[in-house]
Amino acid sequence: MPLEECRRRLQAAKVGRVSFVDQGEPVILPVNHALDGEAVVFRTAPGSKLTAADNELPVAFEVDGFDEDRRTGWSVVIRGKATTVEEPAQLARLDMLGVSPWAGLAERTHWVRIRPYSMTGREIIYPTS
Amino acid sequence: MPLEECRRRLQAAKVGRVSFVDQGEPVILPVNHALDGEAVVFRTAPGSKLTAADNELPVAFEVDGFDEDRRTGWSVVIRGKATTVEEPAQLARLDMLGVSPWAGLAERTHWVRIRPYSMTGREIIYPTS
Repeated sequence: MPLEECRRRLQAAKVGRVSFVDQGEPVILPVNHALDGEAVVFRTAPGSKLTAADNELPVAFEVDGFDEDRRTGWSVVIRGKATTVEEPAQLARLDMLGVSPWAGLAERTHWVRIRPYSMTGREIIYPTS
Repeated sequence: MPLEECRRRLQAAKVGRVSFVDQGEPVILPVNHALDGEAVVFRTAPGSKLTAADNELPVAFEVDGFDEDRRTGWSVVIRGKATTVEEPAQLARLDMLGVSPWAGLAERTHWVRIRPYSMTGREIIYPTS
């Protein structure tokens, strides 16, 4: 899938899943995200596992879709480094993106940015087994 | 969310995402899965990253749903150990489960089983920001 199309689908998807390593084990969480230039951004709570982990943590981020009737599916996966956004000017800008958090807005005051170093899109037509 | 309801949603979901650690970094892949008792099972290709990795690999597996109009969402996350299914009798049984693989059926001849040691379901009502 061309990168432009990957980007379009990342933008259009309402929910994505972020995966990171916590004490040697993979963790996966759904989030409501937005695109900020090349980066994926989402809100998180202070002290959440993700922000508690070191910055520059390697993460994976995925969106997908599935059409049962047409037996087609697609996915876009980003791999990159996560950082917490700290700069007030940046935070103000991100707050304007209109991202609703997956859980309570009140606690989800922090933003995480994923700076991608790879983006891969796949489209699949299922066999009618 | 009660475990029974988690299990019902895992069963009903057509697509889930499996996450594992590859060379210290998280990887996330959509798969078509089924429940086999307490375990989540899905097909994979020989030599895929997942089966190439050591057995007894810790993995996370997630299904979710999102209703934009009602502003509700839910997710069920399993954490467990992945093993490759090798026993012919078991393989024959799994082949009867009617799981279509996410990609080409022909190559996806192997089965991975996730034996869960934790299962967590969350249901969320979004704030109308």
